[in-house]
Amino acid sequence: MEDIVIRRAEHGDIPAIVRLLADDILGASRESPDDLAPYYTAFEAIERDLHQLLAVLEREQSVIGTLQLSFIPGIAHRGAWRCEIESVRIASSERGRGLGAGLIHWAIEEARSRGCAVVQLTSNNTRTDAHRFYERLGFVPSHRGFKLAL
Amino acid sequence: MEDIVIRRAEHGDIPAIVRLLADDILGASRESPDDLAPYYTAFEAIERDLHQLLAVLEREQSVIGTLQLSFIPGIAHRGAWRCEIESVRIASSERGRGLGAGLIHWAIEEARSRGCAVVQLTSNNTRTDAHRFYERLGFVPSHRGFKLAL
Repeated sequence: MEDIVIRRAEHGDIPAIVRLLADDILGASRESPDDLAPYYTAFEAIERDLHQLLAVLEREQSVIGTLQLSFIPGIAHRGAWRCEIESVRIASSERGRGLGAGLIHWAIEEARSRGCAVVQLTSNNTRTDAHRFYERLGFVPSHRGFKLAL
Repeated sequence: MEDIVIRRAEHGDIPAIVRLLADDILGASRESPDDLAPYYTAFEAIERDLHQLLAVLEREQSVIGTLQLSFIPGIAHRGAWRCEIESVRIASSERGRGLGAGLIHWAIEEARSRGCAVVQLTSNNTRTDAHRFYERLGFVPSHRGFKLAL
């Protein structure tokens, strides 16, 4: 087995995380890997919030995957906590090897260990490969996801 | 104009909020208005978290609407904050009068005032009336929403 580590992201991981976000058909146009200042500001906000967990997947000290988890207390469903997954990326050169499934399984176990009743995420309508991936992992496409840009 | 107030929920609003959540074709089977203890526990968790805002819509001291906002710091989109809307309800007897639109407009202004770049929500595939409602308000159904129950 390869030596894969999934761990909480640190300050020094931000350049690699931003490269992963930009290495994507949708992310390419909306990220700015040459101007990292807003990402460091965001990282500080995430670090201050006990209900956020930014993670990286690493092989031989090289960051090749990332995701963010948000743990959300709610009233609905008898006061259930939810875990929301955002910004899932595996380096384009590393896809198709099961690393993404490993990362999502890790996220599900984090959610379970924090007492969440549901794990949820949205995926752009155009990402049909991702939709099949999440369905294989047991996720149900029960909802439509709406966005309003401000 | 009717005397409508939208405000942060208080401890004493929980019974009315739970009745609203249960007064719904999907919520009826998953809420327990006769056992409020888990809802009060959840309310305390929401109150402790500065990034959660549970709100009620009130007319003449009667709670007839609710929603929850979660303000989420993120790395993607150049470190953008997102506002997630959950658990939107208007009393069934009060629908079709524009109260829901007023509640969502209030949420959008809250998100804007906190510097969010996007407001997002998911709606069950079966809620086709709600989908039209959100599209009228400017939301774009760009995503699929996946859930995994734990």
